Order: sequence, then structure tokens, then C-alpha cells
Amino acid sequence: MVNPKYHIFICTSCRVNGVQKGFCFSKDSVDIVQKFMEEVDDRGLSGDVMITNTGCFGICDKGPIAVIYPEGIWYGNLSEDDVEKIIEQHIEGGEPVKDLMI
Amino acid sequence: MVNPKYHIFICTSCRVNGVQKGFCFSKDSVDIVQKFMEEVDDRGLSGDVMITNTGCFGICDKGPIAVIYPEGIWYGNLSEDDVEKIIEQHIEGGEPVKDLMI
Repeated sequence: MVNPKYHIFICTSCRVNGVQKGFCFSKDSVDIVQKFMEEVDDRGLSGDVMITNTGCFGICDKGPIAVIYPEGIWYGNLSEDDVEKIIEQHIEGGEPVKDLMI
Repeated sequence: MVNPKYHIFICTSCRVNGVQKGFCFSKDSVDIVQKFMEEVDDRGLSGDVMITNTGCFGICDKGPIAVIYPEGIWYGNLSEDDVEKIIEQHIEGGEPVKDLMI
């Protein structure tokens, strides 16, 4: 799939030298990626939503970070518990979750 | 910086388990990331352009891959030599490079 309706990028602190180390990773962002993948699968959204892990966005003090394109909505200070709300309200409902935005 | 004018994502085959292994990585995509960073710096574009390395986009046979948001323009089969053209024509000129799009 190219050109998904929504493309969700989540920092897992991957560095280009292959070392995974950093704030988002240390705050369990890999679990957040996996929760996004589960929710997208469970709700039958995999034709519309692509999920990609990334390296650092440079705003580590606000991590864990996710950004959703094409809108360019940035979420911060995420935990696994926030994922369901983002999928339900933003992806399914079209309304960004204001209190998680940075 | 959040909400950059252009956000360029380049696959460096980062996996969520921290292992960097895969097609884009094996085809020197780390050099492509670094070339993007150099060009953006050299041309004074760092206020408008964010560059982020990523995990797999799932279309490895077309790699190395870059995607530019918010437009959602996908480039494939990239080499370091293509970077200058993308920056000049797409980022500075506003015209996607059709012959590199997938």
C-alpha cells in the first residue's frame, strides 16, 4: 500500500547506526506501536491506516511521540492506554484528540 | 519543531526490536538519509524540512523508499544521487520528481 488514508508514525528511538536507545524507547514506545497495530487490525482498518516506527523527532522531552499524516497532528506523552482513544476518535471519528496533542 | 512544511521519511529498515536489517538498509539508505540532511542544511531549509528515518514500509522490492508528507508523495529505487534532484525540484520548486515516484 502506498498513499494510505492515515499514516501513523511512532518514535521507537531507532538510530541510523542501528542502535535503539532513547527516551521514547525507554518509555515503552514499542508497546505503543504494537497496540496501534492491534487496534488497526481488530477494527478492520488495515486498508486505510499504515503504521511505521521511526527514529527520533528531536522533541524527546514530550515523548513518547506519534504523528499522523496527512494532517500533521502531533501527539505526545503517550502511553499504551491512549491508543484506543486516538484510533476511535481521530482515525474512525475524524476528530483529533485535543488533550493529547502537543 | 512540530508541523514542518515538509516531513521526509526514509526507510533505514529499523525494526522495533532494535535490529537494523533489511532491503533499504542493505541498499545504503543510511547514506541517503545523511545526504538529505546535508542538502537541507546546505540550502538553509532546516526551518521548513524535517527528516526522519523509519522502519519498513512493506514495499521492499521498490526500496530504498522515501515518502514526503503532507502531500504523501512516494519515491522508490532511490540512490544518494537522486537526493539533490528531490530537494531542488520538489522541496524548493514545489514540483514532485515524477520519474522517481512509485
